[in-house]
Amino acid sequence: MAKALERSIRERVPTLLTDLYQFTMAYAYWRSGRHNEPAVFELFFRDNPFGGGFSLFSGMHDCLLFLRSFRFTDEDVEYLRSVLPPATDPAFFLFLRELDCSGVTLHSVPEGTVVFARVPLMEVSGPLAVGHTSPSANLKSNAARFRLAAGSRRKLLEMGLRRAQGPDGGLTASRYTYVGGFDMTSNVQAGFLFGIPVAGTMAHSYVTSFSSLEEVWPQTLVAANGDHDNIDLISLTKGWLGRVCELLGAESGQIHEGELAAFLSYAIAYPHNFLPVIDSYSVTCSGLLNFCAVALSLFELDYSPLGVRLDSGDLCRQSVEVRHVFRLCSEQFSIPAFQSLLIVGTNNISEYSMAELNKKENEIDVVGVGTHLVTCTRQPSLGCVYKLVEVRGSPRMKFSEDPEKSTVPGRKAVYRMLDTEGHPFLDLLCLCEEPAPKACVAVRCHPVVGNKTCQSITPSQVSCLRLEVYTKGQITQPLCSTAETREKVQSSIQTLHPRHKRLQEPDSYIVAVSEKLHHLIAEIRKGSSNNSNFLLAN
Amino acid sequence: MAKALERSIRERVPTLLTDLYQFTMAYAYWRSGRHNEPAVFELFFRDNPFGGGFSLFSGMHDCLLFLRSFRFTDEDVEYLRSVLPPATDPAFFLFLRELDCSGVTLHSVPEGTVVFARVPLMEVSGPLAVGHTSPSANLKSNAARFRLAAGSRRKLLEMGLRRAQGPDGGLTASRYTYVGGFDMTSNVQAGFLFGIPVAGTMAHSYVTSFSSLEEVWPQTLVAANGDHDNIDLISLTKGWLGRVCELLGAESGQIHEGELAAFLSYAIAYPHNFLPVIDSYSVTCSGLLNFCAVALSLFELDYSPLGVRLDSGDLCRQSVEVRHVFRLCSEQFSIPAFQSLLIVGTNNISEYSMAELNKKENEIDVVGVGTHLVTCTRQPSLGCVYKLVEVRGSPRMKFSEDPEKSTVPGRKAVYRMLDTEGHPFLDLLCLCEEPAPKACVAVRCHPVVGNKTCQSITPSQVSCLRLEVYTKGQITQPLCSTAETREKVQSSIQTLHPRHKRLQEPDSYIVAVSEKLHHLIAEIRKGSSNNSNFLLAN
Repeated sequence: MAKALERSIRERVPTLLTDLYQFTMAYAYWRSGRHNEPAVFELFFRDNPFGGGFSLFSGMHDCLLFLRSFRFTDEDVEYLRSVLPPATDPAFFLFLRELDCSGVTLHSVPEGTVVFARVPLMEVSGPLAVGHTSPSANLKSNAARFRLAAGSRRKLLEMGLRRAQGPDGGLTASRYTYVGGFDMTSNVQAGFLFGIPVAGTMAHSYVTSFSSLEEVWPQTLVAANGDHDNIDLISLTKGWLGRVCELLGAESGQIHEGELAAFLSYAIAYPHNFLPVIDSYSVTCSGLLNFCAVALSLFELDYSPLGVRLDSGDLCRQSVEVRHVFRLCSEQFSIPAFQSLLIVGTNNISEYSMAELNKKENEIDVVGVGTHLVTCTRQPSLGCVYKLVEVRGSPRMKFSEDPEKSTVPGRKAVYRMLDTEGHPFLDLLCLCEEPAPKACVAVRCHPVVGNKTCQSITPSQVSCLRLEVYTKGQITQPLCSTAETREKVQSSIQTLHPRHKRLQEPDSYIVAVSEKLHHLIAEIRKGSSNNSNFLLAN
Repeated sequence: MAKALERSIRERVPTLLTDLYQFTMAYAYWRSGRHNEPAVFELFFRDNPFGGGFSLFSGMHDCLLFLRSFRFTDEDVEYLRSVLPPATDPAFFLFLRELDCSGVTLHSVPEGTVVFARVPLMEVSGPLAVGHTSPSANLKSNAARFRLAAGSRRKLLEMGLRRAQGPDGGLTASRYTYVGGFDMTSNVQAGFLFGIPVAGTMAHSYVTSFSSLEEVWPQTLVAANGDHDNIDLISLTKGWLGRVCELLGAESGQIHEGELAAFLSYAIAYPHNFLPVIDSYSVTCSGLLNFCAVALSLFELDYSPLGVRLDSGDLCRQSVEVRHVFRLCSEQFSIPAFQSLLIVGTNNISEYSMAELNKKENEIDVVGVGTHLVTCTRQPSLGCVYKLVEVRGSPRMKFSEDPEKSTVPGRKAVYRMLDTEGHPFLDLLCLCEEPAPKACVAVRCHPVVGNKTCQSITPSQVSCLRLEVYTKGQITQPLCSTAETREKVQSSIQTLHPRHKRLQEPDSYIVAVSEKLHHLIAEIRKGSSNNSNFLLAN
């Protein structure tokens, strides 16, 4: 699939997919001969999404493939010529046509790492004009929050395709949801491109498309062990249905024949994978009874049906009722496996109702999450920013009337400080030229937000989060598959202290700057308010 | 661009981009020989998004191109073989390889129409197995709400690319934002594919990349009328800066030299398109003064600078201050055009602050909207549903324990009823075989939600919202360009009564069913609760 993936990225991230001002600025640099000046840009975000305590860094794969294939086609350049002002020097378009990312070096936090606000995630260094074309990273932690809320026992199925922003919003979402800890997706293309396990059985429309048992064809099934001849599944199931009704004291008056026909047709097509949706009409008066009858027939023929899906109403209450019936059938008909059939719940589940799911009595084994996850209802976008931090070796800083919007200048390395139990407790930003902090040696630092008094900390271990991943046109680290990234993400979350993982009001993780960086910031601030001698020199 | 657009759609909407259960169901139909049974599916939504009174129908273009090019490749089929259960009959994959949409007919509401909850937007009729592969429509009304909130005077610039779901989420968003009434986008690829006007000048990083006037090169500019030789723009601007400071009684002490250098470099590159961001340091103490000086130099050389961009802080207050300074300069230096320079505001604008913008005094001419628009903070997804309504000529209906989740059965036409002033006041769903309602003739109908008492209405005009757009492999209506769709959307919104356009608590628009359809629903409900004679027949 590697080839299909690379093709898909090139198709999904055309070189023109950027803001126009990247080109107007590139021209202004080019015009003044500054386009090849060495510059350093940095990507970070200002707040953890979803009111949570952490985020997950992922998406480098796409970024690297994008850098490697970065090129403007003739068609691209012609379009740019048509939208840039007519006075633009024609030689600029020749320059664009020749442009690539061979002069760019990318440093990054390792793929799949837990990250925090204000930490430099990626550093792009290279010619000023190229650096402007920002590689976009993807950070997803909503999926991880669902994973944490769901606990480890329950499986999570992502099924948000139909609610995402355009087709590809869905593809991106399926991928990062899996990375963030989900187990399966309903999105076939995501399975194809990223190797994510796919799942899905039937929609309500399948059930409602049947109205009578006459529509079932073929009507027979051979037993799994091959012992018998073709068995008439309809007669067999009618028999079981009678016994189930008797066992449960159920009225047969509301059982829907079309629904039974749909279940039978599906079971005949997929006797090893029977998992119907049972609430197209009524769970207790029809769907559950029909399911039990077909499932009992399948067991009789040595198949193992999988379970049921509930898609509306109070999932907790219904799952308990369904499990109760499963247990009764299991005992009555001496089929131990019947009591542990899967119950899948898929009714518009949000993170909070997931947390409630853990508090309320329920028997749901697999949760399907759609809308809430993919569109991130609680915070639809992450405030990622891409800022210039150095030009020609000299640090740059953006001031702002809003101090939260100021940037941290200079080329930086990030060190993660771990406590005696191996939990990270502070990320320290140092200038690249500073020596790395050492384990068991005290270091002074200044938190970047909140009360900024200096503190002294002594880490038990130090790990460096700066990795060179691309230089001179080459990718310099092995690319992770989606599954590998998912593993890294899960083990990175594991190391976090529970106080940072809480879904509600987690403790905030400290991000700090070194003494040296702290002084640099103070110096630049001072210099900036004393900068206008040029006027007197007139 | 038509070719590039078609290519892009094929790339962005691969045939596998669907949920796995579409394939498991298709197999079950195929296995029982039902895959070619004629079936009708319908697309609709249950609630207007954003608490608003209406939505906009758009996206048919992509849908039609998708239908026309619908095909599974060998690679697709091999992947499906790997994820479907091993027992799947190999002949099914041959069937998939040959499948196309030549047997499908698509009816639709006209592109660019205002639509309401519960109205059938698209009807897909064709073989049961193909109909399941749902074409997805895009409905965007968030952009239209911004347009309404902004009023007609102000221009709207969409700049949400960096905050969207993956790269293509942004592309989709740029397109529908324009359709919904925005004027420009910052997204170059969207300009390229959809012909949307693109806009953008410079980022803060451009400004902060300069630190001194020595970096300005070339330093000269030829006057627009060609009258003079190369003029030293730096000296000229320093002179103007002194006069501006004098006029405003401004301290020169906080003027940032790097910012002036950035403005000058940009002005030399684009003397006809000068519109810098002026809040990288301080608007009043530096950015505005530097802008006025460069703009006055440009005016002196017969160029027309465009204006300024504000990107942080209280946009209303700042815009008033900026306009005041523009007026002072205009008078003092006798340049009438100076007072009407553009003021662009781009600081995280939500729909509510847009409404506030109209109440508060301000001088903002162009509003750039990013995050809030593209990710639709207020309602990130539209609850679109795709349901089976007929099989082999017989109507189908999905019941639900939640009555809001039931569907309206049968193949339907939608008629829009207009009042004497030409405002739509009710959409009537009729069965296709019913005669169309006539202008000035009373018709009885039953609202589909809320209190369902029968009413009699008499429309002044009736328009039919059912259009055949695709049949026998051919697109049967001319495709609208993005710009044409935008026009249709705007005129469709125009016809709405103001009470349905209110941003807050709009009157709800009535969607009703005909007498005949009402009876059909009642009949099906009755039939369904009396459906289990099949058990007795055992």
